[in-house]
Amino acid sequence: MADHQYSLAELAELLSVKYVGDAELVISGLATLANAGAGQLSFLANPKYKKALATTRAEAVIVAADMEGVGPANRLISDNPYLTYAKASQLFAASSLPQTGIHPSAVISPSASIDPSAYIGANVTIAEHAVIGAATVINAGCVIGNNTVLGEACLLHANVSLYHDVSLGNRVIVHSNTVIGSDGFGFAPSPDRDQGGWVKIAQLGGVVVGDDVEIGAGCTIDRGALDDTRIGDRVILDNQIQIAHNVELGVNTAIAGCVAIAGSTKVGKNCTIAGGAAITGHLTIADSVHITAFTLVTKSIAKAGTYSSGTPMQENRIWRRNAVRFSQLDEIAKRLSDLENKVD
Amino acid sequence: MADHQYSLAELAELLSVKYVGDAELVISGLATLANAGAGQLSFLANPKYKKALATTRAEAVIVAADMEGVGPANRLISDNPYLTYAKASQLFAASSLPQTGIHPSAVISPSASIDPSAYIGANVTIAEHAVIGAATVINAGCVIGNNTVLGEACLLHANVSLYHDVSLGNRVIVHSNTVIGSDGFGFAPSPDRDQGGWVKIAQLGGVVVGDDVEIGAGCTIDRGALDDTRIGDRVILDNQIQIAHNVELGVNTAIAGCVAIAGSTKVGKNCTIAGGAAITGHLTIADSVHITAFTLVTKSIAKAGTYSSGTPMQENRIWRRNAVRFSQLDEIAKRLSDLENKVD
Amino acid sequence: MADHQYSLAELAELLSVKYVGDAELVISGLATLANAGAGQLSFLANPKYKKALATTRAEAVIVAADMEGVGPANRLISDNPYLTYAKASQLFAASSLPQTGIHPSAVISPSASIDPSAYIGANVTIAEHAVIGAATVINAGCVIGNNTVLGEACLLHANVSLYHDVSLGNRVIVHSNTVIGSDGFGFAPSPDRDQGGWVKIAQLGGVVVGDDVEIGAGCTIDRGALDDTRIGDRVILDNQIQIAHNVELGVNTAIAGCVAIAGSTKVGKNCTIAGGAAITGHLTIADSVHITAFTLVTKSIAKAGTYSSGTPMQENRIWRRNAVRFSQLDEIAKRLSDLENKVD
Repeated sequence: MADHQYSLAELAELLSVKYVGDAELVISGLATLANAGAGQLSFLANPKYKKALATTRAEAVIVAADMEGVGPANRLISDNPYLTYAKASQLFAASSLPQTGIHPSAVISPSASIDPSAYIGANVTIAEHAVIGAATVINAGCVIGNNTVLGEACLLHANVSLYHDVSLGNRVIVHSNTVIGSDGFGFAPSPDRDQGGWVKIAQLGGVVVGDDVEIGAGCTIDRGALDDTRIGDRVILDNQIQIAHNVELGVNTAIAGCVAIAGSTKVGKNCTIAGGAAITGHLTIADSVHITAFTLVTKSIAKAGTYSSGTPMQENRIWRRNAVRFSQLDEIAKRLSDLENKVD
Repeated sequence: MADHQYSLAELAELLSVKYVGDAELVISGLATLANAGAGQLSFLANPKYKKALATTRAEAVIVAADMEGVGPANRLISDNPYLTYAKASQLFAASSLPQTGIHPSAVISPSASIDPSAYIGANVTIAEHAVIGAATVINAGCVIGNNTVLGEACLLHANVSLYHDVSLGNRVIVHSNTVIGSDGFGFAPSPDRDQGGWVKIAQLGGVVVGDDVEIGAGCTIDRGALDDTRIGDRVILDNQIQIAHNVELGVNTAIAGCVAIAGSTKVGKNCTIAGGAAITGHLTIADSVHITAFTLVTKSIAKAGTYSSGTPMQENRIWRRNAVRFSQLDEIAKRLSDLENKVD
Repeated sequence: MADHQYSLAELAELLSVKYVGDAELVISGLATLANAGAGQLSFLANPKYKKALATTRAEAVIVAADMEGVGPANRLISDNPYLTYAKASQLFAASSLPQTGIHPSAVISPSASIDPSAYIGANVTIAEHAVIGAATVINAGCVIGNNTVLGEACLLHANVSLYHDVSLGNRVIVHSNTVIGSDGFGFAPSPDRDQGGWVKIAQLGGVVVGDDVEIGAGCTIDRGALDDTRIGDRVILDNQIQIAHNVELGVNTAIAGCVAIAGSTKVGKNCTIAGGAAITGHLTIADSVHITAFTLVTKSIAKAGTYSSGTPMQENRIWRRNAVRFSQLDEIAKRLSDLENKVD
């Protein structure tokens, strides 16, 4: 982070906020309130951590106006300190100097079209008729299939696999070892199971990813059976997410790690799905639905709101007794009804 | 899909079904009833979508005989329209012209044996004494370990990692970024934990995958500790499935995305395991067992049937109250018993 | 395994245990009691399998002293047969002759520093200022980012992706297709969601992995937002584990497959987390906590012990009734209270 230095006044201008204190103060890094020190900027996004503001050794802080009088004298005043921190973080990100060109070890089909401002890293493979847009960076070990199209300013980290006929919009980030365009899980049971097993249904659709999407590491996004699998603009996906064939994700939807969405399910816009949740197939989830961690969704959701399933964690010896009772629950309910009748 | 054109009569012959309508009608693609148009074939597998049959713009449809009079006049009549659609989909799949030969960027051990009809893609690495069978295709970025054997007509998509001493049968498909043969999770606790931690148990077994198996993207299949991990013929695995050491999967078993099966568990034949389910270690699951989504199996299952665990999704504010009651369930049951005694 | 041969007396010496029987007996492999045969050594770790000891065809066994008189006459006597088996397994592991040097197809930045005793495999990419320690082995297809440092005697299996500024200690094993250092899932909601979606928070921290750590296949370990993500010494991770940004794992902690740990959670030392469990963010888990399979942890745990959530598996038709009752549980509890009042 030492590569980046800004004066407090420069930061205020770059971040479109006001500053208070020493305009010339040199800031060379970002840190948490607890760990910040000389030359570092920190931030208070949640007022409940106000105490840390009073004791931080940060030289400057991003705070709301109502935090006056607490903590460092040098400050950037923001209506939305978390958003200002997000923007500031980008100013201190490891400088990835714009690289262009094709590494000599990359294997590029003569029919592929690579914008001269793109960068293709070592040991990358790009197949026939693929198109790579301006300023797009493809890191080492990625494999791009036939007819796959990447827009402008995309970033593929190492060892990403894109199958054929996948389309990424502009400014799409894909993290390492993610797969886009693998076959959906489609098979017809063979009439004679012992002889035939399963007859594979060729997956003839593609995957269409919108603009400004970020996809984490180790995700798998299957191609459609006939129509395309679709990821809307500004969707953000964490790591190890499984998106089955013909799923559609609405714009702005955010999905945390290890979520699985089964085939043909449509998720609305502005949804959040917390870690480890799963949604079964052929469902429709409305806009602005929030699913809590580890929930299994087995029915369509027509109304915005927060939805959950599961049971609370307890000490094992207590949980075990309750879990046994769960398996008697219908009987317990019937005994209660009987007793109610008796008492009446 | 425009590469493929068949007349209705040709399709009927290729699919071993009868046709009704214009024998010469040219079909150049497959589509859903809702989205099909000129030159496209669709299908009705589930009678509950009969309405869509009446309004589809498909030029021809695959239907059962009892759908007479509804929808397009051009039709392929099948006892099992879904199976006929599966077979038809293969006729319209992207033509992957049979490639043979070894890409010059591939790194192949001199002791490896590659059938002349196999295709080895760019930046593939094949280690000592590996054997690659006839007509097998290994796409870019795959790594094949020592002594690993692939049968005939296998297809490895990009960036698959096979460790040493792994064996794939014939016609096995493996999707991108899947790992087969990684070490099982075997460690002996060191007697002095603070000094020693864990003593690794070398995983000396291999992995044996049968014929006609398909393995999705981002899966991990560990090698056995002493004996082999075994995947039976015609098993189909979706994405992000974890198969621990010494698991055995019976023939025809189908496993949906994100399922985890712990060490030494044996799953019977013709089982289906729905998405996100998990099975703990050292269990035996009978043939024809069906596990519903997100179920945790902690006991062996001796009898064919359908098994489940978990709780239903509800609005969070309602669920929360029920979840709290779950943690009091043993007490609730005891209060009910007390009350029953009192009333009696 | 046929590469390795030891006499019974040699094994006893190498494993620091006593032997009984034929000192010259040649042992050429390890096998389970059920499958062992001529020239093979087996072991009895759990006295409940004593019957198998009586009938095994193993030529020698590792057993506790109190097993006298049962099974093969040739034996290694150990206070801890499982630990002795673990050590023995390493003697029979596939001989990976120490390789050194850099494969000519590897792409190494001139500013990277590779110890002459390290081995860099085919199609590996190593970026600027990376440091690779003595006797470390990096297998085919791995990608190592800028400034990333690997200690001594590490082993990276094929197609591992390490981002920039990741640090591995000594003797760290990483299995195939695992990703370390991907961006944490950090975004600030844009004030105008329909216009802006999410503002990415640059992830400025790194990942620090201690000594003697093993990380399974298909794992994802994110870099920290500001501080580092930290994996303690002697931690062992199974496959497909997701570790979010700024998580800290204490020494000796063992985590089974498909576990997910959300951002900034701190897990103590000597913990075990069973398969498929998940821990939400910003929690603190004490030392020596054990989490059972498929448990969701949503609160900090201050006390050593075993913790669980979830419901037991049942036949689907029975489970379904109980699950419906779960969704009425608060009402059932209230009806019980009412009835108690009435009866009183």
